[in-house]
Amino acid sequence: MTRTAFADRLDAAIEAKASPVCLGIDPQLELFPAPLAHLASSTDREVAASAIERFALELLDALCDLVAVVKPQVAFFERLGPPGWVVLERVVAAAHARGLLVIADAKRGDIASTAAAYADYLLGDDAAAAPAALRGLGADAMTVNAYLGADSLEPFLRHVDRGRGLYVLAKTSNPGSRDLQDLVIAGAGARPLYAHAAALAASAGAASIGERGLSSVGIVVGATHPEQSSALRAAHPTLPFLVPGYGAQGAGPAEVACAFDPRGRGAIVNSSRGLCFAYRSPRHRDLGPDRWAEAARRECIAMRDAIRAAIGQSVVARS
Amino acid sequence: MTRTAFADRLDAAIEAKASPVCLGIDPQLELFPAPLAHLASSTDREVAASAIERFALELLDALCDLVAVVKPQVAFFERLGPPGWVVLERVVAAAHARGLLVIADAKRGDIASTAAAYADYLLGDDAAAAPAALRGLGADAMTVNAYLGADSLEPFLRHVDRGRGLYVLAKTSNPGSRDLQDLVIAGAGARPLYAHAAALAASAGAASIGERGLSSVGIVVGATHPEQSSALRAAHPTLPFLVPGYGAQGAGPAEVACAFDPRGRGAIVNSSRGLCFAYRSPRHRDLGPDRWAEAARRECIAMRDAIRAAIGQSVVARS
Repeated sequence: MTRTAFADRLDAAIEAKASPVCLGIDPQLELFPAPLAHLASSTDREVAASAIERFALELLDALCDLVAVVKPQVAFFERLGPPGWVVLERVVAAAHARGLLVIADAKRGDIASTAAAYADYLLGDDAAAAPAALRGLGADAMTVNAYLGADSLEPFLRHVDRGRGLYVLAKTSNPGSRDLQDLVIAGAGARPLYAHAAALAASAGAASIGERGLSSVGIVVGATHPEQSSALRAAHPTLPFLVPGYGAQGAGPAEVACAFDPRGRGAIVNSSRGLCFAYRSPRHRDLGPDRWAEAARRECIAMRDAIRAAIGQSVVARS
Repeated sequence: MTRTAFADRLDAAIEAKASPVCLGIDPQLELFPAPLAHLASSTDREVAASAIERFALELLDALCDLVAVVKPQVAFFERLGPPGWVVLERVVAAAHARGLLVIADAKRGDIASTAAAYADYLLGDDAAAAPAALRGLGADAMTVNAYLGADSLEPFLRHVDRGRGLYVLAKTSNPGSRDLQDLVIAGAGARPLYAHAAALAASAGAASIGERGLSSVGIVVGATHPEQSSALRAAHPTLPFLVPGYGAQGAGPAEVACAFDPRGRGAIVNSSRGLCFAYRSPRHRDLGPDRWAEAARRECIAMRDAIRAAIGQSVVARS
């Protein structure tokens, strides 16, 4: 079965929703709103996992018409052991049922058969899609860490050939990203390490450029680094960007506009805590914790519109 | 509760067993011996997970007197979704019940609360140790990927303070490790990236040097790179090394001796496929697939003795 390239599916979905927002699903139990706090604070993993499921499904229902893609943070599900993974599988299925694409934010990176095991689970078909195979999570794309080199990407690339996508960590949004990622590599060009990671992604994805001119292997570039993002965008016009760090980590629409290509395409901007826990913001205090999903929806509309406006200005300025 | 430093626990266990061998538990289903192959080839994840459990427990029983530490590869358990995690938790508990230390080979790396979620699960106490807390896997140590920088290590270091250990990826055993890890960083010293990763680990672990002179934050250095290993050992006398790539990946005792310090301590040498699937080697064909665990045991004794001899020669040569 030939599957449409991930890059084409994502770009079409962004166009249909007119939204470059990626909803980060970061179910951090300590931040859950009052209606779910009792379940979330349980030391019984099954009970805490049920809080995550209710939270994630309510969030998907509230925001599914506003975004094309969601990014569950695998760590918060893994935190709960087996019951957490049961719920992650249900959340991915629920997102698909609502027509959303799913990026598993797993940041995996390993070699050979080990990398294949991660890829086959996270990107492998779920039971509905492949009833006669060992089922996987069925995510449409995932984040990967390429510190181990090009051969560590190969098992993941096999899934790109069947319609999945990858985002390779290049320049992450945290302050510590300077420690290794900014180190300048000796030799011609004197580029920082993150530029080499981006080049690795570009090389790995060169064969996957789809009908809409974008590769199905992209990079992660933090919204907190607009200069680096601009330079990477100029160097790699066909690489899709996943841009975390919007909102809670301090970056706004002006900082993310440079991640988009001259057409205003080729990037998605993620917000996790800023959307999931919008109810904690003074801006939405009027809604109270009971209407936390409404706060998330209101925040998502504001984010979408602000980024659309910033992209529009950016496209006009560049044309 | 104060816990003995991981480095001290590991060194004492290595001394007691007189074995620097780390048993890598890589339950790669396609390689399972005939007695378990029928279960291992099932597309029902519960059934395949039961094959992994039987395999791992039989392996632990066969080798537990020959090694101080085991390293389950998390990816092969994650491959099976929730039932795989159930079995991983049982395997860790079974290893502890046999007096073994456990290194979760997870290669996680993320930031802030996300890194904390990984650390709290993988290194957090299991239900037996902390009945009133949200239970974790209870591994004694884990592997981490520091591409995201020093701040990404902090949530893991909180567990080092309570007796856990970390191994930061420096120079991995695969050929592709040259792509990023060998890039030479501009500036004084012109050191390769992997040396900077090792320095990050040394800095993160500086406060954790135990009574036996070793830090509880170490590095991963592939057995396939003896020159790099020698240089790192000379630069970082207190860093414990986890040395993968022995056996199946082509390195032998001569290549790993340089990872040990002048006392013949401070390193563990891992073999995964070479031990788990020793029954496939021509050396053990006489045993046949039914006696696969006996083949693993025989191979482990040979590996232990060969490394002990190589360390002895190395210590004599250096003194």
